[in-house]
Amino acid sequence: MSTSTIALAIEKQMVLENGVQQVELLNGVEDSYGGIILNMEKPMESEAFVYSLRASISQWKQQGKRGVWIKLPIQLVNLVEPSVKEGFRYHHAEPDYIMLVSWIGNSTNTIPENASHRVGIGAFVINDQREVLVVQENNGTFKGKGVWKFPTGVVNEGEDICMAAIREVKEETGIDTEFVEILAFRQSHKSFFTKSDLFFVCMLRPLSFDIQKQDTEIEAAQWMSINEYAAQPFIQKHDGFSSVANVCLAKLEKDYAGFSRIPTTTASGKTSYVYFNSRDLSKL
Amino acid sequence: MSTSTIALAIEKQMVLENGVQQVELLNGVEDSYGGIILNMEKPMESEAFVYSLRASISQWKQQGKRGVWIKLPIQLVNLVEPSVKEGFRYHHAEPDYIMLVSWIGNSTNTIPENASHRVGIGAFVINDQREVLVVQENNGTFKGKGVWKFPTGVVNEGEDICMAAIREVKEETGIDTEFVEILAFRQSHKSFFTKSDLFFVCMLRPLSFDIQKQDTEIEAAQWMSINEYAAQPFIQKHDGFSSVANVCLAKLEKDYAGFSRIPTTTASGKTSYVYFNSRDLSKL
Repeated sequence: MSTSTIALAIEKQMVLENGVQQVELLNGVEDSYGGIILNMEKPMESEAFVYSLRASISQWKQQGKRGVWIKLPIQLVNLVEPSVKEGFRYHHAEPDYIMLVSWIGNSTNTIPENASHRVGIGAFVINDQREVLVVQENNGTFKGKGVWKFPTGVVNEGEDICMAAIREVKEETGIDTEFVEILAFRQSHKSFFTKSDLFFVCMLRPLSFDIQKQDTEIEAAQWMSINEYAAQPFIQKHDGFSSVANVCLAKLEKDYAGFSRIPTTTASGKTSYVYFNSRDLSKL
Repeated sequence: MSTSTIALAIEKQMVLENGVQQVELLNGVEDSYGGIILNMEKPMESEAFVYSLRASISQWKQQGKRGVWIKLPIQLVNLVEPSVKEGFRYHHAEPDYIMLVSWIGNSTNTIPENASHRVGIGAFVINDQREVLVVQENNGTFKGKGVWKFPTGVVNEGEDICMAAIREVKEETGIDTEFVEILAFRQSHKSFFTKSDLFFVCMLRPLSFDIQKQDTEIEAAQWMSINEYAAQPFIQKHDGFSSVANVCLAKLEKDYAGFSRIPTTTASGKTSYVYFNSRDLSKL
């Protein structure tokens, strides 16, 4: 349907109803950046949606609005194509919804970027006998290679890095831990399609010691001498792994300070952790 | 169209063509996890697409494939609804494409998570007179509040944190810098819809000193005494800001070690930076 056809259709519909405007305006919520967020929830025919969207945008333009967001739950997938044909672009998607956006303002487009990074953790859990908690995985790159590695996992949206490390260790090995420090991190690119990756090496103190491994992901789990861990040919061969192993050894032998955490309150009132070298900060 | 209707339609089409299979199979690329990636590029009618997808999935199931990915450029938006009706879910989207996925394997679903974090930087640029490079912004939370703040910005997909800091300082103030260390970072949640946020405070050494501010984003830029910066009521009032200011002061006064970087090569042969406390690592 071309622009002029729709304009005509809207006009026609209005005339048919004896001049009373019958096009339902969409119920958008204003954001704090001069934008409108449409949370579409009820099923709607594509054609009626297009009429309403057109009329609503016309009104929002008059009001000086700039960005228009449309959140469509996957049940309303029939409205994706009409939205795109009305000039909307994809912004991001999760399994159960897609967010589309269109810039209707005259000023420079300031639509914020989509999430660009996945975040992972590796857990360095060491006991008093200088033994590190290691696993062999059932899936992925390391499957069947006999490499003993730290428990690792993905940090969920909304999850603190320190909490993700504790959770993953518990899930994979049954060991309870507490967070000590972030010893190092690595940023890599194109890890998953075009997305980048941040991987944090977290030191944790074990609070229990009997391993109960998870069967679906983990082939084997054990406590292993840290020197034996670091001496594995795979670790030695890859400088990403060997440099992390060196940092862990330095933590045990050289009074290495990583970043510990303090809870803070952001300007908008939310709690968030700041990570920094607290040992050096507290120097006199 | 129900499952049985389509099965019938495929069968009917085959019969009409005298038993010769006329359903075009889709051309998927195998990934290294037992999956198939369909990069749809050419326009296709929805109905023909559904027939082909059905036949292709049937074949992939026989081959023991597990995850099926469909990448649809925004021009092929007509194929989004049929894909969802065939059981696909959204995985992620960027302005110009959407990625859908379906798990066709019998084993546990191991579809990787979508990107969950946006990454930002704040640049601590300090000259020999203990003056820090600060700006006032035209837009956003700090507009019109008179707060002098570090240059900040978003790290692009595929961009190194250290490079993003150098780029943002150059863009906002015209100052050339080199990367020194990451002094601290903060993780916060629900910063943008449901996404989380990682913000890295990067220390940079200035290589030039004449400010040429960018006009569209920056209201004002200057070199300001670090003590004057830290004493601003806004900074003092918010512990997220004041703790970062304290870390910066510690860097100047207390031999504070942040995380510096080394380039490493990942197991898959890519270069990526590892960040850690190199001063402590090099202790004897």
